[in-house]
Amino acid sequence: MCRLIIYLGQATRLERIISEPEHSLVIQSYRPAEMTSGVVNADGFGVGWYNRALDDTPCVYKSPSPIWSDQNLPALSHHIASECIFANVRSATLGQAVDYSNCQPFTSGPFLFMHNGYIENFRSAMMRQIREVLRDEYYTAIAGSTDSEHIFALLLHFLHGRPFSLQTGVAAMSETIDQLLRWSIAKGVHVALNLALTNGSCVVASRWASEAPAPSLYYTINSLFFPRAAVIASERLFTSSDWVAVPEGSLVAFDADLTLHRSDLQRQVAA
Amino acid sequence: MCRLIIYLGQATRLERIISEPEHSLVIQSYRPAEMTSGVVNADGFGVGWYNRALDDTPCVYKSPSPIWSDQNLPALSHHIASECIFANVRSATLGQAVDYSNCQPFTSGPFLFMHNGYIENFRSAMMRQIREVLRDEYYTAIAGSTDSEHIFALLLHFLHGRPFSLQTGVAAMSETIDQLLRWSIAKGVHVALNLALTNGSCVVASRWASEAPAPSLYYTINSLFFPRAAVIASERLFTSSDWVAVPEGSLVAFDADLTLHRSDLQRQVAA
Amino acid sequence: MCRLIIYLGQATRLERIISEPEHSLVIQSYRPAEMTSGVVNADGFGVGWYNRALDDTPCVYKSPSPIWSDQNLPALSHHIASECIFANVRSATLGQAVDYSNCQPFTSGPFLFMHNGYIENFRSAMMRQIREVLRDEYYTAIAGSTDSEHIFALLLHFLHGRPFSLQTGVAAMSETIDQLLRWSIAKGVHVALNLALTNGSCVVASRWASEAPAPSLYYTINSLFFPRAAVIASERLFTSSDWVAVPEGSLVAFDADLTLHRSDLQRQVAA
Amino acid sequence: MCRLIIYLGQATRLERIISEPEHSLVIQSYRPAEMTSGVVNADGFGVGWYNRALDDTPCVYKSPSPIWSDQNLPALSHHIASECIFANVRSATLGQAVDYSNCQPFTSGPFLFMHNGYIENFRSAMMRQIREVLRDEYYTAIAGSTDSEHIFALLLHFLHGRPFSLQTGVAAMSETIDQLLRWSIAKGVHVALNLALTNGSCVVASRWASEAPAPSLYYTINSLFFPRAAVIASERLFTSSDWVAVPEGSLVAFDADLTLHRSDLQRQVAA
Repeated sequence: MCRLIIYLGQATRLERIISEPEHSLVIQSYRPAEMTSGVVNADGFGVGWYNRALDDTPCVYKSPSPIWSDQNLPALSHHIASECIFANVRSATLGQAVDYSNCQPFTSGPFLFMHNGYIENFRSAMMRQIREVLRDEYYTAIAGSTDSEHIFALLLHFLHGRPFSLQTGVAAMSETIDQLLRWSIAKGVHVALNLALTNGSCVVASRWASEAPAPSLYYTINSLFFPRAAVIASERLFTSSDWVAVPEGSLVAFDADLTLHRSDLQRQVAA
Repeated sequence: MCRLIIYLGQATRLERIISEPEHSLVIQSYRPAEMTSGVVNADGFGVGWYNRALDDTPCVYKSPSPIWSDQNLPALSHHIASECIFANVRSATLGQAVDYSNCQPFTSGPFLFMHNGYIENFRSAMMRQIREVLRDEYYTAIAGSTDSEHIFALLLHFLHGRPFSLQTGVAAMSETIDQLLRWSIAKGVHVALNLALTNGSCVVASRWASEAPAPSLYYTINSLFFPRAAVIASERLFTSSDWVAVPEGSLVAFDADLTLHRSDLQRQVAA
Repeated sequence: MCRLIIYLGQATRLERIISEPEHSLVIQSYRPAEMTSGVVNADGFGVGWYNRALDDTPCVYKSPSPIWSDQNLPALSHHIASECIFANVRSATLGQAVDYSNCQPFTSGPFLFMHNGYIENFRSAMMRQIREVLRDEYYTAIAGSTDSEHIFALLLHFLHGRPFSLQTGVAAMSETIDQLLRWSIAKGVHVALNLALTNGSCVVASRWASEAPAPSLYYTINSLFFPRAAVIASERLFTSSDWVAVPEGSLVAFDADLTLHRSDLQRQVAA
Repeated sequence: MCRLIIYLGQATRLERIISEPEHSLVIQSYRPAEMTSGVVNADGFGVGWYNRALDDTPCVYKSPSPIWSDQNLPALSHHIASECIFANVRSATLGQAVDYSNCQPFTSGPFLFMHNGYIENFRSAMMRQIREVLRDEYYTAIAGSTDSEHIFALLLHFLHGRPFSLQTGVAAMSETIDQLLRWSIAKGVHVALNLALTNGSCVVASRWASEAPAPSLYYTINSLFFPRAAVIASERLFTSSDWVAVPEGSLVAFDADLTLHRSDLQRQVAA
């Protein structure tokens, strides 16, 4: 499990989500409020962001150490601002190494990806299955050993050949969840799939699990704390009625104009 | 603050205190039960032990990462056994770097040392004061920036020139606490000084704070879980009436025959 | 590429191979003399050893940092002695992460394994091929992304079901090299396969490459510096005529009595 | 010893000095050409830069690992551009810990500082002496154990109370070198003091040693590779007659308009 935060809107310093809110990502790392398993999120962290004046690909800063003691992050998060930020703190599932390669967000070309959840008995039940269907380019790009990175590879596999947009992003994420659900039923294991994907201008996120409750997920648009921005997060960053729970079994998506798109995942899965 | 465990007795694998007990050091790192400040002890750890067949000096293994995710410790603690073990998990005081040099136990010649507690406003109120009195050899040996390492240097300073024994160890620890108390009164700051020192054959430990309550400290002798051994620990490693609380303001010491020596610290401080 | 050292004989401190010789492993890390590619071996290191009084499995200490600056190794290598030691310094092939999981030696049950060499274009040319033939238990145990760990998995696959001995170790290593050679010819890539395997009482090592010269490899038996011991190393640890070059295309093996067994690999490969 | 590079001019990506030149900082880390001691610079690295649209203080990214294997630096140095950059690779002097706190550049308020050189027998001969003269604010700010950080504290001490400018920067650096020279003569130790200081808009650097030759230092202004910029570096980043050696015993300084100011350090020291 882990905690994740997504920011899309006017340029803001990274610290605006990492350390400034009363229930910031740093606090969610050592005192999370809505974890369904695990105690702390101290097995690494990562932040990804875009500086589109320079480049279309994201920049990522990750480390296998606890976020609160990282000696570079306070300066980096104070001196870097971005219009699109993905941030994550990790609680490693038993048996998954606390290595750099296993920290999120993952990146590929213009994309950032995060996963909060799990695939039960991933290594024995699903790892080989997922790998076997992948195109070589996504298979060989897997650097670590997490279920999350394999899910990202599968999502890239489904996205292959389609120009990215909010619509194709929603479609590929739905297909990924649908495929994982079919395999999980066949293998008799549970999965929890809060996924998030961006290309720097639009964001797609899911809240889904094969067994209720799915991991928590909230969003807020144009709040006082985050004006002219949409924020999606595992836990509310401050106490306010501005936060809306993403319904279980659904996808939310935001385009650059911050309009909310919602779709029912169950129906698409059933289709 | 931190959690510490001391073992003295028949040779046992390191894992016997680190991971096997129901409330092992690993569990005390992410779910401590009696912390007076801090939430987790995930800012590094260390284990020191003796292999006296080979050498009179201790071996130390330390890391600034959380103890639960260290990839070497499970093997090391399974394959190494010792008659005298010092182990520690750290919760860094605000502003103290999470570096290797700041992890405990500290070592010098034949000695291992640990400190659980704090010196309030250490850097501004007391660091320069402590350093000024030190002999050059202890001054220059300080490698990190913690109050704990400076306290160890002061203790070595007071031990200087005396052959080490349970008696001189108790005396030097009392003098160290007495001196720190005098300075803390002069500077108007609080101190908490649960200290522990060993040369591999006898152990001296204190429970003391300028403001009650002092950090918790327990010992057990010849328990079912640890036969032919004395164990001193910040928190009880298992539920049992075998554990005795060290009274606040006192020292406990064990020699190789595991006989308990107790002395009242307040009286010695007042002397 | 990397540098490796193997010790088998009377118990000796780890430092006897790591830091004491004039051309020790530490010196081979920053000033290697016979590297065919790369400049330094500073992308991690590892040491494995046995303490058979306690356990039949080996203990391993690894780190992705340079061996010369590791703050734990001087104490560990001074205070630990063993009758069978595997030690390694790593120079990462381009594109392979400098993670703990990618450091050698690798371990599985009673075995330690090291590889000095490479599989050309491993990720694109051979990774998927190797994985596909593996039994699930060796497939899922792969934790990192190196060619070396995949070669070890293949070797374990060939060893499967046979009681380990010098003879079965030699046979399985020959089969592994034979299989990798067939695939490398099919894929049109080169391979260099200096392999080493032990169960703590006997050692098998190969010197082999599809294109001459194979990486260097030497052994010495009962030398002045290492009495009552056999040592195998990528580079000679000191200047002496005691060192014998392992012929290219051959295997050397030592049993607990230090008798040398040699076999011609080419012939077995051709078989 | 170490290698350092300073950039001042039109905004450029960090990678322009770190990895792109034929003799980039990364290459200087594993294959330096003009080191007077040491073999590689693999004991950590650091990069500091300014983003003055957001803040007057610098951002610093440092790590105790080799620069070539850092998994964050390629992305950070590609996605971040700046008008003023300080970059460093470290070769630790024997006995100085390879910790984050000992990596350069150092920072304080608006300043970045680097030192290439050494104070002979620093810990025993000079550390206590330097510390004793420092104002409390610079004394307590020292986080590590290097001679370099202590030299920076002394420079800040001499700068205290003066508004920073190219002139006051040159004066304080001269006074720092003068003071260190007096002490080094008194203690009978040698010092090498290639220093560099910036506030983000002007840069001051020295080349000085008590015993010739001083560590190498070059600068180039408005070169083809670095148009509209001044670059100062321990080693030339590419083969070209554009590079000018800084004379031993002198200071060079650049203001935002890239005009070169040179002054003779010997004379000022003698004054």
